Amino acid sequence: MDLPSLFSESALNLKSSKIRELLKMAGVPDMISMGGGNPDSASFPFEEIKTIIGSWSYDRAKAALQYGTTKGYVPLLEEIADWMVKRKKVSMEGQDILITTGSQQALALLSKLFLNKDDAVIVELPSFIGAIAAFYSSMGRIEGVRLDEEGIDIGDLDRTIADCKKKGKTVKFIYTIPNFNNPSGITLSREKRQKLLDVSRRYDIPIVEDDPYGELFYDGTVEDYLPVKRLDSEGRVIYLGTFSKLLSPGLRVGWIVADGELVAKLELQKQSYDAFTSTFSQFIACDYMKRGYINTYIDKMRKVYREKRDAMLGALERYMPEGIQWTTPKGGFFIWLTLPGEIDAEEVFKKSVERKVAFVTGDAFLPEDYARNYIRLAYSDLDIDRIDKGIEILAGVLREMIG
Amino acid sequence: MDLPSLFSESALNLKSSKIRELLKMAGVPDMISMGGGNPDSASFPFEEIKTIIGSWSYDRAKAALQYGTTKGYVPLLEEIADWMVKRKKVSMEGQDILITTGSQQALALLSKLFLNKDDAVIVELPSFIGAIAAFYSSMGRIEGVRLDEEGIDIGDLDRTIADCKKKGKTVKFIYTIPNFNNPSGITLSREKRQKLLDVSRRYDIPIVEDDPYGELFYDGTVEDYLPVKRLDSEGRVIYLGTFSKLLSPGLRVGWIVADGELVAKLELQKQSYDAFTSTFSQFIACDYMKRGYINTYIDKMRKVYREKRDAMLGALERYMPEGIQWTTPKGGFFIWLTLPGEIDAEEVFKKSVERKVAFVTGDAFLPEDYARNYIRLAYSDLDIDRIDKGIEILAGVLREMIG
Repeated sequence: MDLPSLFSESALNLKSSKIRELLKMAGVPDMISMGGGNPDSASFPFEEIKTIIGSWSYDRAKAALQYGTTKGYVPLLEEIADWMVKRKKVSMEGQDILITTGSQQALALLSKLFLNKDDAVIVELPSFIGAIAAFYSSMGRIEGVRLDEEGIDIGDLDRTIADCKKKGKTVKFIYTIPNFNNPSGITLSREKRQKLLDVSRRYDIPIVEDDPYGELFYDGTVEDYLPVKRLDSEGRVIYLGTFSKLLSPGLRVGWIVADGELVAKLELQKQSYDAFTSTFSQFIACDYMKRGYINTYIDKMRKVYREKRDAMLGALERYMPEGIQWTTPKGGFFIWLTLPGEIDAEEVFKKSVERKVAFVTGDAFLPEDYARNYIRLAYSDLDIDRIDKGIEILAGVLREMIG
Repeated sequence: MDLPSLFSESALNLKSSKIRELLKMAGVPDMISMGGGNPDSASFPFEEIKTIIGSWSYDRAKAALQYGTTKGYVPLLEEIADWMVKRKKVSMEGQDILITTGSQQALALLSKLFLNKDDAVIVELPSFIGAIAAFYSSMGRIEGVRLDEEGIDIGDLDRTIADCKKKGKTVKFIYTIPNFNNPSGITLSREKRQKLLDVSRRYDIPIVEDDPYGELFYDGTVEDYLPVKRLDSEGRVIYLGTFSKLLSPGLRVGWIVADGELVAKLELQKQSYDAFTSTFSQFIACDYMKRGYINTYIDKMRKVYREKRDAMLGALERYMPEGIQWTTPKGGFFIWLTLPGEIDAEEVFKKSVERKVAFVTGDAFLPEDYARNYIRLAYSDLDIDRIDKGIEILAGVLREMIG
């Protein structure tokens, strides 16, 4: 039968994600993939997870396998509230927490809750592909704002919002990844965090703060990476956290911290999206925090990833030809390359893949018809040797193309 | 700040689910809850799950904790395809499978893919509350069709669709739970399965077949409960399966079997909903099938649940006053009570809860302004003794009210 004739307007709007198509090519054996932003798989705390599961009493196991509530497992909610206050210095007054099936679900819920067709969302240029997909899925429009070395360009942000207002477009929220932005690796400076909040206040537009990497810093101090939400006493920042980089993405556990009434609405929406997040995963995440494994893991991973980052920065320095620029991330998983304007990253990709090196072209993280001379490199799940080899090969391709 | 002023039209449409409000009251200690449709928690295969996880090699554990693909873990997809062909007698020709985060996500994806505002969905009266919530969440309209003892009333179905057409309403699909409908316990007879498909063909409207309980039959033979999809060679049936009742709801793993192109679209939609379903859970489900644990569990649970059903039917027979009618489910978790027309189930609920007995009022499973004299009873997660005690108390309340 002709099912597509029955599709909704929103379904007809769905497009295949380029990154996923590219990553399929990157999955072949012997490929050095600097593509997906995977955590270092050699470091997953599998033994700790087995210890946790092995310690469960019969009653606890029964609860871990049973239906759960939509809001989340209460002891996990308590652990996260404590974490937000003590570790992230966020006041929970008037705020509440919803467990989500990864941060991707948080983005889907927020899109559904805020966006009517053609409503605008402010995103950084470049920004996380999964967020962009979620906003498009709710028929929203993307308004890009430039990043400089200190994060979002406050002047450009102000102009963009003012311009939207002038044109009668409704801006529903500002989406930002302040720490080690995916894909650029750029961090919002401490000074600009307050300024971002000031813009939000001036225009009365909430901020969605996506913070998957905040604990994984390799330079500076913890104070440099505390959330924008820390500065917010009016419930205008909606904070997204996740266990994907602090434990395992395979468990699919994230959380939203936001105004209590908003959380209640998001909870209602989540009921029809997936009823509740895996209780089994939530029990693991809860014990992982309670037992302090999370702290040991973070301490270890800061060292592991710092070495990888340094290896990639060193290799870029050693091998790259003139005319290529890159960011120096203070944490997270990614480095962003700017090629000379006439070089098409997709051409680079095709030639590199032939030589068994993969990455993601920058246009995946940008609105359509934006410049095509960017590349995202992930060092997070690669051995030091392969990072060096991968960059050497990529540099060779670029040298040939630049000529 | 005033967040609600920024909400989307769909958010303003969100309503709190009554069942969840009622179940909160049911969670107090010593309550005999016949409310939630929980699997028997004393029977969860926790030892098998520990054996499975304990058997994983280092490489397998790494993959189970890492990011996964949106479509699902390939060996699990293969196990399910095999299951659909051999156990469910479904032809997979032209059909494909998508792993979902429980069947609830399948319902959300299908709603999003098919429904524009005010599009109609045909549902049984009564029908699953999570499905109704998903359809409303996509701003769809519910068109109810009566059930008789043999399942959906084919004449009423035909009339309802014809009537929608006459009024210019677009009907996007027919949603049915043919085996032991939640909440009524009613099963679609073998004869009527073909007739349902004939209606779908006549009007060219697909069927969404939700089959969480199909393996859990206590009377008849396996042939009686094979899916409607088995009879379909045109890709008009979209089949939903889940591990929630065959392993654990806490793992959140379900699947959709449908036309290949439709599955590709659903996969795209799932990308922005939660990127992928827990790899950890999928690995457990895969090994659980591969090792044959699923068959042992099903065999055991048919006996466990049959005893519970028989206990509840026996108690109803023993204790209920004249004027109360109930269904006799051939499988699944639920019995549906029809009270005398003048009795309001919510009044019954309030009085029962005072005596520590909870259930769900039938209006939760029906369109607004439908009759209020129905009750759903779940026997699935209660000891035999408590089933007897619970029915005795409920019967006492009803006897007083009927007077």
